[in-house]
Amino acid sequence: MNIGVALYGLGNVGSGLVEILHARDDELRSVRGVNLELRHVIIRDPARPRRVRPQRVELSRDWRAPLEDAQVDVVVEAMGGLDTAGVVVETALRAGKHVVTANKALIAARGEELEALAYARGAELRYEAAVGGAIPVLHALRGALVANRLTRVRGILNGTCNYILTRMAEDRLSLADALARAQELGYAEADPSADVSGTDAAQKLVILARHAFGRWLPLDAVRVEGIERITLDDVDDALRRGNVVKLIAEASRDDDGAISLRVAPVEIPATDALAQVRDEVNAVTLEGDFAGPLTFIGRGAGSRPTGSAVFADLVELALLHRSRWERN
Amino acid sequence: MNIGVALYGLGNVGSGLVEILHARDDELRSVRGVNLELRHVIIRDPARPRRVRPQRVELSRDWRAPLEDAQVDVVVEAMGGLDTAGVVVETALRAGKHVVTANKALIAARGEELEALAYARGAELRYEAAVGGAIPVLHALRGALVANRLTRVRGILNGTCNYILTRMAEDRLSLADALARAQELGYAEADPSADVSGTDAAQKLVILARHAFGRWLPLDAVRVEGIERITLDDVDDALRRGNVVKLIAEASRDDDGAISLRVAPVEIPATDALAQVRDEVNAVTLEGDFAGPLTFIGRGAGSRPTGSAVFADLVELALLHRSRWERN
Repeated sequence: MNIGVALYGLGNVGSGLVEILHARDDELRSVRGVNLELRHVIIRDPARPRRVRPQRVELSRDWRAPLEDAQVDVVVEAMGGLDTAGVVVETALRAGKHVVTANKALIAARGEELEALAYARGAELRYEAAVGGAIPVLHALRGALVANRLTRVRGILNGTCNYILTRMAEDRLSLADALARAQELGYAEADPSADVSGTDAAQKLVILARHAFGRWLPLDAVRVEGIERITLDDVDDALRRGNVVKLIAEASRDDDGAISLRVAPVEIPATDALAQVRDEVNAVTLEGDFAGPLTFIGRGAGSRPTGSAVFADLVELALLHRSRWERN
Repeated sequence: MNIGVALYGLGNVGSGLVEILHARDDELRSVRGVNLELRHVIIRDPARPRRVRPQRVELSRDWRAPLEDAQVDVVVEAMGGLDTAGVVVETALRAGKHVVTANKALIAARGEELEALAYARGAELRYEAAVGGAIPVLHALRGALVANRLTRVRGILNGTCNYILTRMAEDRLSLADALARAQELGYAEADPSADVSGTDAAQKLVILARHAFGRWLPLDAVRVEGIERITLDDVDDALRRGNVVKLIAEASRDDDGAISLRVAPVEIPATDALAQVRDEVNAVTLEGDFAGPLTFIGRGAGSRPTGSAVFADLVELALLHRSRWERN
C-alpha cells in the first residue's frame, strides 16, 4: 500500500532520511509491502546548496500545501526550531496526519500538548531521533521494557560536551581548544551555548523521563549545570582518583513517585559503563525493576544515524497506518 | 480484551514470567486494555519445590490439554530442551497459536522450519529471551534498525564464560577455580560444557545472524572454539598488551553476501565497548550502514531479566492478536 509522506527540511536530518528512502525503497516495498511515497519536500532557502536531491519531487517553499494534501499520511518535521516547526506539527496533527520529528526543543517544550492533540485526532506522534540519535531508547521504553517499572535513567546525551571532555582528558586540551576542535569537525555549532550550558541534554532528559516515568515535566524542572567552568585541573584530579568527568543527565523516581531531573558534570568511576563512552558518542542506561540495568551506546547525531531513527519511526507509523486502513 | 496464555515450565524463566504477570497485570489491563489470562501452567515434576505459585491456576502435568484449549491464544515455552519443547511448539503453531520461547537450542536447531510453519498457519513465533536475556537485540534488528543493512554483529553472549574470564583477569584465578566460583554463584550449570565449549554462544549467534542477515544457517556453520584451553598466562599476556580476552561471537557478511560465523576467545583492546563488559553481563554490537555501531549491554540470564524479555514478546503478540481480532 501507498503511504504519502511530506518532508519539512532538507538539512542534516532531512538529507539522511532522503538517502535512506533512496537506498531502502525497493526492499521496503518487496519485504513489508509498504510504498513510502515522498510527495513534498519543503525547504526555507532555495539558494542553499543541497547534498542530496530527492527523486521524483520538486523542492518547494509552500509549507501549507502538504498539510492540505489528503494523500499525505505522515509528516516528517526536520526543520528544527520552535516557530514554523511548531505550526507545522500542530496543523498536521489537527488534520489527523501522523508526525515524525527529530526536534527535541519542540517536544521538550510542547510534548504534552502535542501528544494530547494527536490522541484526540487519532494520529500518532513519534520522535525517537530527538533523544540519542540512532539509539533506540524510546522504542525500548515503549516496547521491550514493558514488564518494568523504571527506577532510574541516566545518560550521556550531548555529543559535543562528551567530545570536549574526552579531548581534555586524553589530549590535555583546554576547554576552549577542545571546543574549537569540535567546531572544526562539525560536532559543535558556531554558537555552542545550548550544548555547553547543558540545555540540549536537559531537553532530551525531559523526553526520556516522559517515557520512563509516564509524565511530562517542564524544562525548568531540570537542575542544569553546564561544562563551562570545567578546567583541565578538574579533569586531571578525577583521573588521579581513577574517575572520569562526564556530563551526566539523570532522571530518577523515588518511592513516593517524585521525579528528579538533573544535568551536571559528574565524576564517575572508570568501571561505570558510561565512563568508556568517548568523543561524540552518546549512551543511556535504563534501570528496570525486572530487566536490571540496560546500557545502549551509539551515535547521537549526524545525518545518517539520525535519518536511521527517523526512518524507523516512519516505517512503524506506515505499518500502523496500514493495519488501521485494512481494518476500516 | 482477553488473551489466553499457557505456560510450559515453572523453572527459572517461567517463575520470572509469573512474577511479572502478578506485578504488572492490573497496569497492563488499565493502560493497554489487555488482560493476559494464565489458563494453564504445565510442569514435569510436581514434587519439585517452586519459588513462585501462579494465582488462580493449578499446576498440571497434562501437556496436551492447553494445545486443545481453543481459549489459549499464546503458548509460552519455558521448559528448555529439544524433545517435549519441540513437540509443544510445533503442535501449538500448527493449531495457529502464537508461541513465545526462550529456548535457544530449539530455535538454533529448528528455527527455519518452525518459522515457516508459523507463517503457514498465520501464527507468530517470538524468542527475544533466547539471545542476550533482557537485551532487546532482536526487537532492535526487527524494528529500530529497519533502515540498515547490517554488516557485522558481534557480542559477548555467554555470561558464564565472561564471568570466568573476568575473574581470571581481575582475581588471578585459574580457569578451574573461576568455574567453580561461577557454579557456586549459580552462573554455571553442574555440567558447564555447553557454556565453556562455546556451543551456547554459537546457538545464540545463529539466531542473531538470522535477524541481522535474513538467513538461517545451521549450527555447524559456526566455527567454534571454547575457553577450555585459556590459561592465566594467556590472560596476563593480553593485559600486558593493553588488551583483554573475551569469548566473542561474531557474524559478518562480506560484499558478495557470504556470511561467516565464529565463536572464539579473542584478545580485544581495552577501549573496545565490549572490553568493559564484566562478570556475567552480556553485550551485543550491531553495525548498521546508516546507524553506525550500536552496543547494547545488559543481563543475559537470570529469572527476572529473562522473564522481562518473555513478557515483552507476550505483550507484543497480545497487541498484535488484538488488532487482528478487532479487524475480523
